[in-house]
Amino acid sequence: MPGVVLAVDIGGTTVKGAVFVDGVEQAPGSTVPTFTASSGALGAVLAVLSALAGTARALGHEPTAIGVGTPGLVDRGAGMVRYAANLGWTDLPLQQLLEARFGVPTLIDHDARTAARAEMAVRPALRDFVFIPIGTGVSAAVVVAGKTVTGARGQAGELGHIPTVPNGRPCSCGQFGCLEAYASAGAVLARYIAGGGSAESAADVAGLVGHDGLADDVWSDAVDGLATGIITLTATLDPEEIVIGGGLGAAGPLLLDPLRAKVGSLLRWRDPPAISASRAGPRAGLLGAALLGSAARSSSRHANQESP
Amino acid sequence: MPGVVLAVDIGGTTVKGAVFVDGVEQAPGSTVPTFTASSGALGAVLAVLSALAGTARALGHEPTAIGVGTPGLVDRGAGMVRYAANLGWTDLPLQQLLEARFGVPTLIDHDARTAARAEMAVRPALRDFVFIPIGTGVSAAVVVAGKTVTGARGQAGELGHIPTVPNGRPCSCGQFGCLEAYASAGAVLARYIAGGGSAESAADVAGLVGHDGLADDVWSDAVDGLATGIITLTATLDPEEIVIGGGLGAAGPLLLDPLRAKVGSLLRWRDPPAISASRAGPRAGLLGAALLGSAARSSSRHANQESP
Repeated sequence: MPGVVLAVDIGGTTVKGAVFVDGVEQAPGSTVPTFTASSGALGAVLAVLSALAGTARALGHEPTAIGVGTPGLVDRGAGMVRYAANLGWTDLPLQQLLEARFGVPTLIDHDARTAARAEMAVRPALRDFVFIPIGTGVSAAVVVAGKTVTGARGQAGELGHIPTVPNGRPCSCGQFGCLEAYASAGAVLARYIAGGGSAESAADVAGLVGHDGLADDVWSDAVDGLATGIITLTATLDPEEIVIGGGLGAAGPLLLDPLRAKVGSLLRWRDPPAISASRAGPRAGLLGAALLGSAARSSSRHANQESP
Repeated sequence: MPGVVLAVDIGGTTVKGAVFVDGVEQAPGSTVPTFTASSGALGAVLAVLSALAGTARALGHEPTAIGVGTPGLVDRGAGMVRYAANLGWTDLPLQQLLEARFGVPTLIDHDARTAARAEMAVRPALRDFVFIPIGTGVSAAVVVAGKTVTGARGQAGELGHIPTVPNGRPCSCGQFGCLEAYASAGAVLARYIAGGGSAESAADVAGLVGHDGLADDVWSDAVDGLATGIITLTATLDPEEIVIGGGLGAAGPLLLDPLRAKVGSLLRWRDPPAISASRAGPRAGLLGAALLGSAARSSSRHANQESP
């Protein structure tokens, strides 16, 4: 991964960034809240990139490319975020905007696909899998024969908005009973607090399972929703593995053990696929964005070669 | 499509076959019940193939290949049907068995994938779509960039066994609330009769919608289940089109109109994909099996060339 890449991973809670020089992550990175009183998600992205550009220059490097992983419906080819409910974006030309502002080739892609790209870099033998990042939202990257499925209009991967509970909880997307309304870190925390509990994060709620009936109920609904999604993906796509990533993926056995048990008990007519935690870890999104940025630089050089 | 191909489309109710000479279907074909008092599904397949071989010879042709589309978990590479609940098959080496019996190169594949192959032959511009044959069962072939997704173990396409109703009706696979338990032609007919209605086929029930409350209820549940499956596929894979085939697909507007309306009303955060009836029609499975058989012949010739 050559060059000086500014990598950004946009989440519903924070925007994280890091500078990668020839593939090696440099300190310090930059993390800012996605939403503050004074600015929205785009302001956070620009603030992180400005900080990273400063870091790169302080280290004696001029940035050569930007890679960005973002939630929502992302048309990578057009460089557009078509719709991101959690971020408040509709038809945002993010790639063009960042290229104009920072003057370097930029690529954007769906956050699940960038994270899956990192997972493949760490585990090159993995060819047919579904990567499910669980954070503020829930999404998925479907990888078939080593290639991520982008869909006819670049809108694949919205696992968070599959229906799992008929007439269930309202979702930010306008539907009812979406997986994301039960299984995202945001939903787990919100439901626990709404039920009268007190916690700072979904990981806190996970830690109370087995000791607190409310935590048990909320966690069990999250696991049930994810199991439904995984069984559906398994039935239709037959992946060799389901890889769980994102913030909630870091809950490890607290999530994976009941999830494997639930999928195994519900899936009657075939063996379940392996269900594992991301090896690329919580920074998969950032590493994937760096790999994407590196591709932006290559394709830009390629384009230059073709039009001398 | 060169050669003399015996094409077989195995369904839960009937096994259909036809002889294709250089791609042209010859009369007479052969259709037998999948199950009779004296034999099971394999007997029906052998009976159809024997009849087709007789037809071919009567026309002055020696069969050169066999192509078979079958429901269930099909490992095309190994030529095995791993599991087919409706047919009572587990680990059946169907390809090897037919090659031994008829002495010509044979290929087997999942019935949805063979039908999707026919759809692509009829509509070559269609590259990213999901083909959903609805007959005795419900399945799906996911096509990404013109290639059918077979899955890590060749077991992709079991859309009939995605969970759509929590703790719902028992399914032949052992699960509860599967799509197939509501939306297959078999389920529609069985539920209508169990509710006190009288009909010969699912198409009869479809024809009573709007005039018979029981038919309305049964059909509405089928449409709801299919809508759930289509929204899930759309969210995760973003196909450009959903193509409905199989016996129930032939119900046309009776199925497609309420299905489009339901998907459109439930899917809040993006435009729905087009939902269309198979252009290859009710004989898509048979045409696809013929195309598969033609590939068997080509790969066999290729293998012979490599080991002279």
